[in-house]
Amino acid sequence: MAVNSAVQTFDAAYQGAPGAYSEQAAEAFLGTSARLLPLSTLDEVVSAVVAGRARAAVMPVENSLAGTVPNAYELLVDHALVVCGEATVAIDHVLVARGSTRRSDVRRVLSHPVALAQCRAFFRRHPELEPVPAFDTAGAVLQVVREADGISAAIASRRAAKLHDAVVLEEGVQDHRENWTRFLLARSATVGCPTAAGDRKALIVFELPHAPGALSSVLNVLGRRGLNLTHIESRPIHGRPFEYRFIVELAIPAGDSTLDAALGEMSAVTSWQRLAGLYAVT
Amino acid sequence: MAVNSAVQTFDAAYQGAPGAYSEQAAEAFLGTSARLLPLSTLDEVVSAVVAGRARAAVMPVENSLAGTVPNAYELLVDHALVVCGEATVAIDHVLVARGSTRRSDVRRVLSHPVALAQCRAFFRRHPELEPVPAFDTAGAVLQVVREADGISAAIASRRAAKLHDAVVLEEGVQDHRENWTRFLLARSATVGCPTAAGDRKALIVFELPHAPGALSSVLNVLGRRGLNLTHIESRPIHGRPFEYRFIVELAIPAGDSTLDAALGEMSAVTSWQRLAGLYAVT
Repeated sequence: MAVNSAVQTFDAAYQGAPGAYSEQAAEAFLGTSARLLPLSTLDEVVSAVVAGRARAAVMPVENSLAGTVPNAYELLVDHALVVCGEATVAIDHVLVARGSTRRSDVRRVLSHPVALAQCRAFFRRHPELEPVPAFDTAGAVLQVVREADGISAAIASRRAAKLHDAVVLEEGVQDHRENWTRFLLARSATVGCPTAAGDRKALIVFELPHAPGALSSVLNVLGRRGLNLTHIESRPIHGRPFEYRFIVELAIPAGDSTLDAALGEMSAVTSWQRLAGLYAVT
Repeated sequence: MAVNSAVQTFDAAYQGAPGAYSEQAAEAFLGTSARLLPLSTLDEVVSAVVAGRARAAVMPVENSLAGTVPNAYELLVDHALVVCGEATVAIDHVLVARGSTRRSDVRRVLSHPVALAQCRAFFRRHPELEPVPAFDTAGAVLQVVREADGISAAIASRRAAKLHDAVVLEEGVQDHRENWTRFLLARSATVGCPTAAGDRKALIVFELPHAPGALSSVLNVLGRRGLNLTHIESRPIHGRPFEYRFIVELAIPAGDSTLDAALGEMSAVTSWQRLAGLYAVT
């Protein structure tokens, strides 16, 4: 692809510091040799793609314990990105610190608020530890290593610990073993996605008038064709009280050829709709 | 009510420090003389109700800009609370600091990550300001006032500024004027709610087998009776891949008497369901 091949174009942007779970997702999508751009916020990640600084955005959309990631789908939709892939990353938090920090000296534990909330039982067992919010897990490791105050540790992945020359002080600090985050890979609509084959998913966004049964009419169109929902959420529409936008992901079986007809039929009920991606699941 | 009337029982618990938007919601529900218990996390808020330390939980569930609040509905459902009321609070962020701090000296701005994300244009206009995450908006004000470092400010409400003897340095710092958070008031199922009259909402939680059309069957049951969805979201079920829990809020018109029949009909399709509240909208 010749588009945006200037030296400063990255293969993908992600939110967090190197070592973040999002970086792991980027490598699952694009391989370990991809050139990746770490940024502070999801807003900056999407803006980098819109500005052509990165060819793709790696977006966390859903965590098995915490639910939908605030604003992630909205950013994709508002900037008219298209989704080209999905990957799920297992989250396995450990307690990490500088090699010189002793476990018994730790008093402050930095991490993303969602990661801290996933380790409630750990903090209950250790009332001497103060949870301290940070923007991301890997950034917390970096901060702890740099500040070197002898009493601070971070909750993050083994990968982040290794990358920033920190050591693992304690394993299994999260409450639930089954903890994963689902990521989408999104590109600008002008670049688009390679055609996906096999079992796929479709991301469809639509708006409905505030009328009883409107949503079930839409879902009937999909259900009649055997297209199963794997995610649905409603969002209020700014400035239009009582109207809603729906974000839906559908499982599209291999060889399915009914999606186009379903979208056509849906458009009789929706006031606005967009197919925001048709992608293979990694 | 004689239940839990010991001296240490609070009328409601909320997440955040005094001056939080959640405290404002608590007063909208229970009046300004209610005895309120501020706690650090939503998990602790729900636990306080389960333990009988507070008679109600004030739970933010949805923000107009950031979407669903991570884990809020799940906590209500997992602890079998019942929802007794809904209130919407307008969010209006201002920049606040100690009276001795000059606007031109400010370099660090503390707030909840969601509040910081709602002020992106403000931070772009002021690249000299470093956003610093905190657990909540009002707590950030308290921290700034206590630390008195001369360079830190907080993003929070006017109410939080006033309560902690801070001054407003700048108004209108949020990107969008229309910014609100919807709160639910929840009690333990053993205490229950007073019967609500007039226009109401119902919170229904149900689980479905992974079969095409299952969700539209449920929504048909509701749509045929003119019961309109105001919120829907799906959540994966821990330990049962490809099965989903749905959280739905319905508008129930005054005088409606079809909800019971609808729930009965739904139960033929769902693998589990619960009416988690039937409540007036404040």
